[in-house]
Amino acid sequence: MKPEHKANLMPRVATFGEAMLRLTPAGFVPLQAAQSLEVQVGGAELNTAAGLAALGTPATWISALPAGPLGERIRAAVRSVNVDDEGILIRPGRCGLYYLEPAAAPRPAAVTYDRAGSAFSLAADYDWPKLLHDAGWFHVTGITAAVAPPGVVMAALQECKSRNINISFDLNYRATLWTPERAAAVLRTMLPFVDTLICGEADAELLFGIRGTNFESVAKQLAHEFGCPHIAAVRRDAPVAWRNRYGAIGWSERTGLIETPLFDCEVVDRLGAGDAAAAGFIVGLLQNDFSRGLHLGAACGALKHTIPGDLPRSTLADAEAVLAGAGMRVRR
Amino acid sequence: MKPEHKANLMPRVATFGEAMLRLTPAGFVPLQAAQSLEVQVGGAELNTAAGLAALGTPATWISALPAGPLGERIRAAVRSVNVDDEGILIRPGRCGLYYLEPAAAPRPAAVTYDRAGSAFSLAADYDWPKLLHDAGWFHVTGITAAVAPPGVVMAALQECKSRNINISFDLNYRATLWTPERAAAVLRTMLPFVDTLICGEADAELLFGIRGTNFESVAKQLAHEFGCPHIAAVRRDAPVAWRNRYGAIGWSERTGLIETPLFDCEVVDRLGAGDAAAAGFIVGLLQNDFSRGLHLGAACGALKHTIPGDLPRSTLADAEAVLAGAGMRVRR
Amino acid sequence: MKPEHKANLMPRVATFGEAMLRLTPAGFVPLQAAQSLEVQVGGAELNTAAGLAALGTPATWISALPAGPLGERIRAAVRSVNVDDEGILIRPGRCGLYYLEPAAAPRPAAVTYDRAGSAFSLAADYDWPKLLHDAGWFHVTGITAAVAPPGVVMAALQECKSRNINISFDLNYRATLWTPERAAAVLRTMLPFVDTLICGEADAELLFGIRGTNFESVAKQLAHEFGCPHIAAVRRDAPVAWRNRYGAIGWSERTGLIETPLFDCEVVDRLGAGDAAAAGFIVGLLQNDFSRGLHLGAACGALKHTIPGDLPRSTLADAEAVLAGAGMRVRR
Amino acid sequence: MKPEHKANLMPRVATFGEAMLRLTPAGFVPLQAAQSLEVQVGGAELNTAAGLAALGTPATWISALPAGPLGERIRAAVRSVNVDDEGILIRPGRCGLYYLEPAAAPRPAAVTYDRAGSAFSLAADYDWPKLLHDAGWFHVTGITAAVAPPGVVMAALQECKSRNINISFDLNYRATLWTPERAAAVLRTMLPFVDTLICGEADAELLFGIRGTNFESVAKQLAHEFGCPHIAAVRRDAPVAWRNRYGAIGWSERTGLIETPLFDCEVVDRLGAGDAAAAGFIVGLLQNDFSRGLHLGAACGALKHTIPGDLPRSTLADAEAVLAGAGMRVRR
Amino acid sequence: MKPEHKANLMPRVATFGEAMLRLTPAGFVPLQAAQSLEVQVGGAELNTAAGLAALGTPATWISALPAGPLGERIRAAVRSVNVDDEGILIRPGRCGLYYLEPAAAPRPAAVTYDRAGSAFSLAADYDWPKLLHDAGWFHVTGITAAVAPPGVVMAALQECKSRNINISFDLNYRATLWTPERAAAVLRTMLPFVDTLICGEADAELLFGIRGTNFESVAKQLAHEFGCPHIAAVRRDAPVAWRNRYGAIGWSERTGLIETPLFDCEVVDRLGAGDAAAAGFIVGLLQNDFSRGLHLGAACGALKHTIPGDLPRSTLADAEAVLAGAGMRVRR
Amino acid sequence: MKPEHKANLMPRVATFGEAMLRLTPAGFVPLQAAQSLEVQVGGAELNTAAGLAALGTPATWISALPAGPLGERIRAAVRSVNVDDEGILIRPGRCGLYYLEPAAAPRPAAVTYDRAGSAFSLAADYDWPKLLHDAGWFHVTGITAAVAPPGVVMAALQECKSRNINISFDLNYRATLWTPERAAAVLRTMLPFVDTLICGEADAELLFGIRGTNFESVAKQLAHEFGCPHIAAVRRDAPVAWRNRYGAIGWSERTGLIETPLFDCEVVDRLGAGDAAAAGFIVGLLQNDFSRGLHLGAACGALKHTIPGDLPRSTLADAEAVLAGAGMRVRR
Repeated sequence: MKPEHKANLMPRVATFGEAMLRLTPAGFVPLQAAQSLEVQVGGAELNTAAGLAALGTPATWISALPAGPLGERIRAAVRSVNVDDEGILIRPGRCGLYYLEPAAAPRPAAVTYDRAGSAFSLAADYDWPKLLHDAGWFHVTGITAAVAPPGVVMAALQECKSRNINISFDLNYRATLWTPERAAAVLRTMLPFVDTLICGEADAELLFGIRGTNFESVAKQLAHEFGCPHIAAVRRDAPVAWRNRYGAIGWSERTGLIETPLFDCEVVDRLGAGDAAAAGFIVGLLQNDFSRGLHLGAACGALKHTIPGDLPRSTLADAEAVLAGAGMRVRR
Repeated sequence: MKPEHKANLMPRVATFGEAMLRLTPAGFVPLQAAQSLEVQVGGAELNTAAGLAALGTPATWISALPAGPLGERIRAAVRSVNVDDEGILIRPGRCGLYYLEPAAAPRPAAVTYDRAGSAFSLAADYDWPKLLHDAGWFHVTGITAAVAPPGVVMAALQECKSRNINISFDLNYRATLWTPERAAAVLRTMLPFVDTLICGEADAELLFGIRGTNFESVAKQLAHEFGCPHIAAVRRDAPVAWRNRYGAIGWSERTGLIETPLFDCEVVDRLGAGDAAAAGFIVGLLQNDFSRGLHLGAACGALKHTIPGDLPRSTLADAEAVLAGAGMRVRR
Repeated sequence: MKPEHKANLMPRVATFGEAMLRLTPAGFVPLQAAQSLEVQVGGAELNTAAGLAALGTPATWISALPAGPLGERIRAAVRSVNVDDEGILIRPGRCGLYYLEPAAAPRPAAVTYDRAGSAFSLAADYDWPKLLHDAGWFHVTGITAAVAPPGVVMAALQECKSRNINISFDLNYRATLWTPERAAAVLRTMLPFVDTLICGEADAELLFGIRGTNFESVAKQLAHEFGCPHIAAVRRDAPVAWRNRYGAIGWSERTGLIETPLFDCEVVDRLGAGDAAAAGFIVGLLQNDFSRGLHLGAACGALKHTIPGDLPRSTLADAEAVLAGAGMRVRR
Repeated sequence: MKPEHKANLMPRVATFGEAMLRLTPAGFVPLQAAQSLEVQVGGAELNTAAGLAALGTPATWISALPAGPLGERIRAAVRSVNVDDEGILIRPGRCGLYYLEPAAAPRPAAVTYDRAGSAFSLAADYDWPKLLHDAGWFHVTGITAAVAPPGVVMAALQECKSRNINISFDLNYRATLWTPERAAAVLRTMLPFVDTLICGEADAELLFGIRGTNFESVAKQLAHEFGCPHIAAVRRDAPVAWRNRYGAIGWSERTGLIETPLFDCEVVDRLGAGDAAAAGFIVGLLQNDFSRGLHLGAACGALKHTIPGDLPRSTLADAEAVLAGAGMRVRR
Repeated sequence: MKPEHKANLMPRVATFGEAMLRLTPAGFVPLQAAQSLEVQVGGAELNTAAGLAALGTPATWISALPAGPLGERIRAAVRSVNVDDEGILIRPGRCGLYYLEPAAAPRPAAVTYDRAGSAFSLAADYDWPKLLHDAGWFHVTGITAAVAPPGVVMAALQECKSRNINISFDLNYRATLWTPERAAAVLRTMLPFVDTLICGEADAELLFGIRGTNFESVAKQLAHEFGCPHIAAVRRDAPVAWRNRYGAIGWSERTGLIETPLFDCEVVDRLGAGDAAAAGFIVGLLQNDFSRGLHLGAACGALKHTIPGDLPRSTLADAEAVLAGAGMRVRR
Repeated sequence: MKPEHKANLMPRVATFGEAMLRLTPAGFVPLQAAQSLEVQVGGAELNTAAGLAALGTPATWISALPAGPLGERIRAAVRSVNVDDEGILIRPGRCGLYYLEPAAAPRPAAVTYDRAGSAFSLAADYDWPKLLHDAGWFHVTGITAAVAPPGVVMAALQECKSRNINISFDLNYRATLWTPERAAAVLRTMLPFVDTLICGEADAELLFGIRGTNFESVAKQLAHEFGCPHIAAVRRDAPVAWRNRYGAIGWSERTGLIETPLFDCEVVDRLGAGDAAAAGFIVGLLQNDFSRGLHLGAACGALKHTIPGDLPRSTLADAEAVLAGAGMRVRR
């Protein structure tokens, strides 16, 4: 529930990235036989903004959408989850789409992107000083680094630096968007701006050749190489599709290694879990409490599995109930 | 489409009233046999605010909602249609509901209200100077006069007067809320504050004993009795349920009688048509053009019949196409 | 609303016939492309029983159903519309089905029956004295005469005669069930037992060779030939599928010709309209008022067009509102 | 399948309590984002009556409903599951509602009640001699003790006593309805009338301060304190939401402790499981076989998890297949 | 119903063009608020092929689809309506989409295309001799002339000429695809190959500057200018969205002017009506009976309005019933 | 994806049997309460043909269907999964149906057949030389042996023998169709024609009295008794309904015992899994690789559990991913 008088002391988080319409056949029907498609809206940084808003942290999503009903469909979703829409540019281009075929063991989920030519992939005229004028934190992912026109993300990062806005960056390497070599080259220029880097062992090795016997070892190398104080990652144990276990892990010089429990998840929709976790991380970091951030992130990521669509909706109370082990009794 | 840089010259309209969840059985199933209910959000003044936002006029809806998911459901609807939610108080009480059974001749639509004890019906602590600080117009209806605690509407009207904010008032007498005598007593105290009174011949006679041979005669008497410069009303010709004709009529000293065409409507959902019309009226009056307001109102009211739910969504372009007689060719 | 203390003075009506599951593709999809089928329950005499119950007249439906979930599905529908299920036998056989493809001009509705081998078509062991022990009226149609095993309907009629129970009989000739010659031979043995015969001019000519310049002339001949005091028929004007006009006509020696208005109907589902009309006829005849019966029948038949499924649900208040010309304003 | 000639030897069970419309968003959508709501009907004692009817035991549900379509919606559900509706009063007041958000680990189910001012909570004029004239057993719960007007439940219990009708009472303490102190004070006056008390260790301690090392110890104290011969409880093991284990336990002086297996349940809808178990308990007790009652109750409770809605539908054959370990092969 | 032994005497019709997935919000919901989208498959020449197959004329659809589930979705639709899929190339590119917002007066239907970069728009390597080896007729539209790579349509037309395959061409000018000047330039090169040109007065004037006082005058000029023996057009009277009147008109030197009745249509889905009409035209022309073609086309076009989706499904029997004025009685 | 130029080297598989419409209530609703039924098409041999087509092996389904929309509904499904429909006869009779109530532990799935009098059960005039002229393999099951008129299956088997077409035969004993004695008598005449017999230990014992300490022992006896070179069976471990484990086992003189892993399956729809496995078996055997067949069969059978309806849709790539242990990461 949004308080009617905004606590102006709470810093506003700005996130930047693309959102797409997500089209999902109902009831596990394969796409090739679909008779209807459920419409959701998703995109990594929008998901994180929604997660922040649900946790009570004001969030603005900066992006570009096409004019017309599909762009307006996305805006309506943005607003309906209490994310600020003042940072949305209306620009020429398509509305990006992606199709999701849900999983059931032994069939994994399949995502088919149809995002080429989107308004976001073409827009380059962001007025960063204006867009970031009231931001207290900035969040972006490697997906945006791959999709936005060259230079756009760097301009944002530099503006943040000039304003002393902390930056979190979820590496989120996607092989369908760019090669590891290209990604590494671009990301190496960006990570030095970053306070909190979300990156697991596999991406660290694939992109930067960083190897270690455990997360701590990898995290120390990442922190050293890029100068990022906080390194975080999510943990998923997914032998089947409908029941996973989910948690978080992090390291900083100050705190050392922090590892959360893995929470049992019955999976309604696992997309956006990592973005929900990022929202939890940021909430903790805004309070200067990395451990709380990791735990909130783990709980929010776990809870996201129970919500249809990409957009997280869990409140602080929901997350804290998970962390407190409140259990599965019906709440009356 | 909402412009990304708001034209600050456009005055903001504030509307004040209750919204409820509307529950409608799908497919003409009678409520006594309903297996599922579609959820919509509606309320006269919220509907008008949504109509204004769709027409590109900034609108704020002032109201009170209960804490919890049902109140949040209403807030999500408010935001998703680009209405400002900063004027919503969270207060104790229920979430008002109403059930709608759609019509097919010879069975008329039936609305069953379940709104007693709602947060709106209990809330009385509106901070009007703050809520109206950036308003350029104020809109309210007789439903709110009946439902809100005594004195609440008058406080708003007085604050408007002190700020020179124009007021439109849709009489909207509802026999299930109060008697004609009680309504007349209350409304007589309010109408002297009003610039634009929306009131048809039947209500004028029932409440105020005003009779005339035609709308013009009644409007003149209303204008004289209450000092309202603009008198408007909607026209509906509804021999059956799925096809109506809809238009508007108005009178002011300055313009004399203005009557719009009646537009053929294929009825998807007729609720909120009058509220959509009010939005059109206001847009014209904000431009000091009563005739344009009546025509926009007629078009918006007609277009509302084609939109499911209570909330209008027609743009200026949509309305102007109707007024221009653009016809029913598929728009490609 | 069913009164909690039954007025024992109101006679109970027993109806006798088959009910089937009706399977309808949603949204005008042709059966050859159907992805899902809506399930309804219908059958001429059950429809009339439901219409009677909705009008407040106690009704019992006598029939035979198969054991198992399909038969129980029908029983649940029977009970849910307040029809007594004590007269249902559970007997070997299938559950009859029919498929309905709804109409849109110029494509008429199509019904595909799959009822061969049904429990009803095989059952012959009705204990009529017990089943009719508290009946004050008996209603059956020509469909049952065609479908039930030979002798079954005659046994019921004879038991009625021995108990002075009035009988209404809806001729309802169906060419897919029997030839006109066979129908005429069987029905000629039954009609002499009948008080109220529902039969239009076309069936009268096709089966009995009775012709006349108008309904009155045909009705007189039917009344004379079979000794039926009351002759009734429905009137439908159906140039297209979604808007019809519907009414009733009747003749008796005592009253002469009675003709009701034709009511405009927006057609949600026209099946069962004639059965709903029969319920109205019976309610009037139970009050010894044929004209009221015809008017109630016309209104109930018209109202049935607005209700999905075969089973009428209109109350006396609904019917009287139609007869009073209450119009299409939203009832709040 | 209901036998067509009722075995009059089987005693009729009367249950007494409120039923509400249950509104559930489809597909795990949070209530704050719901676009449609599935309509079910539920209430503890109605659920038990439905469970009894499905098991072949005649059951009457005594209650009060409002006039109008919502009350009629509940009546239709009551009748459709073969429960007798002759004990329903139509009285002024609202129709109680509750909203259910289904669970997925780690998010528990959430129930939001909206039942204040319901017809049931206001009705006090039950004609108990008439309502219980053919009852052989009476079942009620602590929910009804909390919700019905003061004195109403006691009047029923006293009438039962005067007629030697056995009483089962499911304690079912609900913290949102009353405090433990208030509940204890009221329930202490009622339990001395009770033959079979359904109460787990937690409620026994919370309300009556009764503690024990195991169920047997607690049950003996309950039996001693209130003079209830049979003490029963259900057992649920619910680490996650979609797979639980469910069983029953009981104690009486005559039988000593009886404990059933815990059955694996894949959870379609867990609401009403305890009420289904109560129906099984009663069927056994009507046959003077407490152990059979507990086993039937365990099986019916487990089976209820597989049925959407609150109303149990399992037959004796279904329950016996579970008890016999018939397994999960497709039944063809 | 497809005959099991194909009448080899019936010539096979080949059509050539793009098909797209059509996405339609259910229930008149505007696209900007859509929660789910119904999936259909449509494209002018595929629609005509489906119409032919339903009329019993073997039809092959030549096109290019992308690999993957979206292309396979289209193939499944093609096959399910009994159109031959041997002429489909699998080629790189997107799957074209279009969004449809259905109409209700005064809101016209709106189509939003998203077809840029489709496999069809890129494919140019058709093996025409092979693809047309068993064709007896070829059908294409101006949409394909606009969308396919330059030269592709001309190659097909030339191959037809070399094989003496008759060609029908539906002009179907779409302003969103090309300018009138560009269209005229391209089409002028194609029409001299054409036997049957489908073109109304408006397109004739807009593209070729041909004006006349009536259809006959325009048709004569078209026939003269391009040497097309048969000129046909459809007639639609559409004052509102849900009820139209539809028919056909044609002229040839041999037959003179032929005009069919306008048939009343209740509009379930008007898209594809012109393509269904083209199928009827072709069936008549294959029998060398232009008048029969125009009448079948009028009936098939009218019937298409009653079928959801773009693909016609009417049989010869359906069309002949319309032409015979069979009326709207339920077919049992 | 179907290759556009068919590899004529790949042998075509013909399967022979009945298909029915399958009607399933949505959402675990019991049939006795169903409001809508999902329509699927299934039948053992059609399922196997669909599985083959999905794996890229051309397949023809030989059967008989009734004229009219229900038979056409089945044909549309057949074609939409790329199975050839040239072997379908149109014959008098009903369209067989079956109702499926899905399972949730402890409630097993229930299938209710309504197939008596179907066109398939009556048709006996198959022109085998023509139907099998291009077949390279023939597949049939014991269900067809029970349902088809006497002699029909034997005629097919003999034609295969005369053409040196290999035969696979899935024993698939169904107690509702015939007694073990009758089945054994008929099947004993057929199995000597068979190359690959699919038969588990339970059927071997029930029908032929063959017992063994393990599958290998039973398989050797079956192979010896009937002269079948390959014996295969599926393995299912199903303690609950929503999660099973599934694999295959086989034996031949040449290969000895081959046993696949059991794959974890989250069960969307388990019907047709054995038929999907048979398709995998056949693909391997066509390549003369029994082990590959068993592994493909195990993977295809496991994958079928994730697909709604009876018809398998898994490609070779899907199956190979399962066999390679590709895991449950989202495929992007």
